[in-house]
Amino acid sequence: KGGKLLILPGDHIGPEVVHEALQILDIIEESTGAKFEREFDLCGGCSLDKHKDSVTEAVLKKSEEVDAVFFGSAGGPEWGHSQPNPESGLLRIRLRMQIFANLRPCNFVSKSLVHRSPIKEEIIKGVDFMLIRENCGGAYYGNKIEEEDYGCDPWEYKRSEIERVARVAGALAMQHDPPLPVWSADKANVLASSRVWRRIVHEIFDKEFPKVNLRDQLADSLAMLLITKPTAFNGIIVTDNTFGDILSDESGGLTGSLGLLPSASLAGAPAAPGTEPTQGRNNAGGVRGLYEPVHGSAPDISGKGLANPAAQVLSLAMMLRYSFNMHREADLVEEAVARVLNSKEDGGLEVRTGDLGGKAGTKEISEAIQGEVRRL
Amino acid sequence: KGGKLLILPGDHIGPEVVHEALQILDIIEESTGAKFEREFDLCGGCSLDKHKDSVTEAVLKKSEEVDAVFFGSAGGPEWGHSQPNPESGLLRIRLRMQIFANLRPCNFVSKSLVHRSPIKEEIIKGVDFMLIRENCGGAYYGNKIEEEDYGCDPWEYKRSEIERVARVAGALAMQHDPPLPVWSADKANVLASSRVWRRIVHEIFDKEFPKVNLRDQLADSLAMLLITKPTAFNGIIVTDNTFGDILSDESGGLTGSLGLLPSASLAGAPAAPGTEPTQGRNNAGGVRGLYEPVHGSAPDISGKGLANPAAQVLSLAMMLRYSFNMHREADLVEEAVARVLNSKEDGGLEVRTGDLGGKAGTKEISEAIQGEVRRL
Ligand SMILES: CC(C)[C@H](C(=O)O)[C@@H](O)C(=O)O
Ligand SMILES: CC(C)[C@H](C(=O)O)[C@@H](O)C(=O)O
Repeated sequence: KGGKLLILPGDHIGPEVVHEALQILDIIEESTGAKFEREFDLCGGCSLDKHKDSVTEAVLKKSEEVDAVFFGSAGGPEWGHSQPNPESGLLRIRLRMQIFANLRPCNFVSKSLVHRSPIKEEIIKGVDFMLIRENCGGAYYGNKIEEEDYGCDPWEYKRSEIERVARVAGALAMQHDPPLPVWSADKANVLASSRVWRRIVHEIFDKEFPKVNLRDQLADSLAMLLITKPTAFNGIIVTDNTFGDILSDESGGLTGSLGLLPSASLAGAPAAPGTEPTQGRNNAGGVRGLYEPVHGSAPDISGKGLANPAAQVLSLAMMLRYSFNMHREADLVEEAVARVLNSKEDGGLEVRTGDLGGKAGTKEISEAIQGEVRRL
Repeated sequence: KGGKLLILPGDHIGPEVVHEALQILDIIEESTGAKFEREFDLCGGCSLDKHKDSVTEAVLKKSEEVDAVFFGSAGGPEWGHSQPNPESGLLRIRLRMQIFANLRPCNFVSKSLVHRSPIKEEIIKGVDFMLIRENCGGAYYGNKIEEEDYGCDPWEYKRSEIERVARVAGALAMQHDPPLPVWSADKANVLASSRVWRRIVHEIFDKEFPKVNLRDQLADSLAMLLITKPTAFNGIIVTDNTFGDILSDESGGLTGSLGLLPSASLAGAPAAPGTEPTQGRNNAGGVRGLYEPVHGSAPDISGKGLANPAAQVLSLAMMLRYSFNMHREADLVEEAVARVLNSKEDGGLEVRTGDLGGKAGTKEISEAIQGEVRRL
C-alpha cells in the first residue's frame, strides 16, 4: 500500500499547512503499514524566485511520473507583476498531468459549522453536492491571441474532452445506490461549444450510465438557484472550465468556510472500492491526481501560525481515497477533522481557527486532528 | 416630453405584466403631459409561431428607430426544440441596437423584503450595487463553429468594445458625489481577452475618470465574495458578457426576489440629469435602450393572473430615467413599488404576490402601484 508523492508546498501559508497535513500522513503510514515516498519541489512564486519560471520542466516531468501530487498554494503580492505569473505553474501542471476533472465537494464537514454559512440555516442545511469542473480545456487553454487592441481566447471543446469528464460524473454517480442525480450545466441557448457539450454528455449517459438521472441546467440560472435552493442540487454537477471556475467559487461561498474546502483534480474516473480505474490509472491502482485546498496562499496571515490546515488535511483525505484506494483511511481523516471542528455540544472538541470564530492556531488544530486520527 | 416605444411583450406572462406596466405609463402621460407613441410587435416564441423566426427583419429595423424598446419575456417549453430558439430573437435585437451595456441593480426596492433574502439579514442588509455586463461581444457573439465532434466560441474583445462599456461604468460612478467605486471583474490571470480588458479599462479610467476609484477583481473570487461580503461591492461592477451573465444571475439570487429584478440594456452611457448622452443618443435626448425584467416567461403561472408585475414596472422606471431623462418620474415609480411591497409596520401597503409570501394577484399589485403613483 502507498506510493509515490510529489509535494509542492508553494508559497506563503502553503508550506505551513502542507507540513501539518503530512503529519497526518505519517500517522496513516504507522497505523496501516503503507509507505508514501515523498519528493518535495517548487511551483509558483518560490519557483519564480529560484528558476525564473513558475514551474520547471523537471517538475512537470515528475508530476507525470508520480502517483499523486500534493499541492499547497501558489502566489502572492510580491509576484504581482511577474511574467509568467505564479498561477501559471499550476495551469501547466494540470495540462501536463491531464487532470481534466476538478472535483469540489460542497457540504459541511462539521454539522456545527452550518450556522457560519452566510445563507440561512433552513436553506443551506443538508447541502451536499460535488461540483466537477472540466479542467484542461475550454477557454482557459488553447491558442490565445493577445494584442494591443484585441484579445481572443477560443472557447473550444472536442468530443474526447467532453466524454472523459462526463464519464467521471457518471462513475461518481454510480458509486451510490440509488445512483446520484447529475446536472450538466451549460449555455446551450447561446454557445456552440455548449450545444456540443450537451449532446455528447447525453450520448455518454444514454450509452454508459442509463440508470443515472441526467438533467441539463443553464449555467446562469444555476448561479441563482445555488443561492436560493442549494439543496435542490444534492448530487453531482458537471460543467465546463469557465462555468466551473465561477460556480465552484460560488459554491465555496455558500458554506462560508473557505478554510475548509479541499479539491481534487483527476486524470480519470475514480473507481468504486474494490475495482480499478480504466483511465488515468497510477501505479498504486488509483487514479492520478493533484490535491489542493481551495484557499489561496493567504499572504496576510503567512508566517504567523494562524492558517487553518483543515482544507489541506481534507485534500489529503481525497488523495487517499482517489489516488490510493484507501477509502477507510480517507473517511477516518474526514471524521477526525469533523470531530475537531464540531462544537462541544455536538460532542466535538471545538478547536477552531480565527476564520471559524475560534482562537486556535495552526499547530493546535493540527495536533487535535492528529489526536483524533490516532484515536479512530 | 416622451417619445417612440417599440413594445415586445413576448410569451407567457410577458404580455400580462407588460400590460400592467403600461397602465403606469398612462398615468405618467396624464400627469406630465408626456406622450409615448406605442407600437406593438412580436419577439420570441410568438414570432416563431407567426413568422417561423424568433424576430423578423421588420422588428429589428424598428428596434433601431425607436427611442426605447420595452420587452416582456421570451420562451417556453413549446419552443424547446425550435430552430432558432426563442431567446435568439433577443440576442439579435441586442446586437442590432448595439445595446452593449446591460445594467442590473442589486438592492432592495423595499426595505421590508430584506428578510426574504436567502442570505442572513446582517450580511445582505444595505447591499446596493449596479452590475454592468458587456452585452454585445465576447463569447456570446462572433463566428461560432458547431460540428458533430467539436464546438468553438471565440471569446474576443477589441478595444472599442471595452472602451465603451468602461465609459458607462465611469459615467454612472461620476453621477454620485463622491463618485462610486468601480470593480472591474475579469480573469486576467488566465485569459488573454481579460488582460486586454483590464489594460484598456484602466486606460479609460486614468484618462477620463481619474476621480473614480477603480479596482480589479478576479471574477471567480467575486462569485464567492458576493455571497460572503456582498455589501463590500456597493458601487459599480463592470464585467464581460460571460462573467456578467453568471454574476448577474447570482446577484439576483442574493436578494431572493426574482419577481422584483429589472434590467436595462443601453447603447451608450446615461447622461447626468440636465446633460445629454454622447453615444447612443435617441430622439428623446436620452440613451437608446431595451428594458426587460430579469425573470423569464414563467410558463407555469402564465394565464393565471398570478405573475408579479413589479419587475416589469421597475424596468419601466429605468426606461423613464435612461431613455427619456424623466428622473423624477422614475424615482416616483420606484417609490410607489416600494410602498406597495413594504410591510404595514414600515408604513407600506403590504400587497404582495405568492413569490413574496403574499396572496395578491397581478391585478391587485398593479392597481395598488397605480394608486401610489397617482398619490405621489
Ligand atoms: C489560479 C487560477 C489559474 C485558477 C483557475 O482559474 O483555474 C484558480 O482560480 C482555480 O480555480 O483553481
Ligand atoms: C436568454 C439568454 C440568451 C440570455 C443571455 O444569456 O444573454 C439571458 O440568459 C440573459 O441573461 O439575458
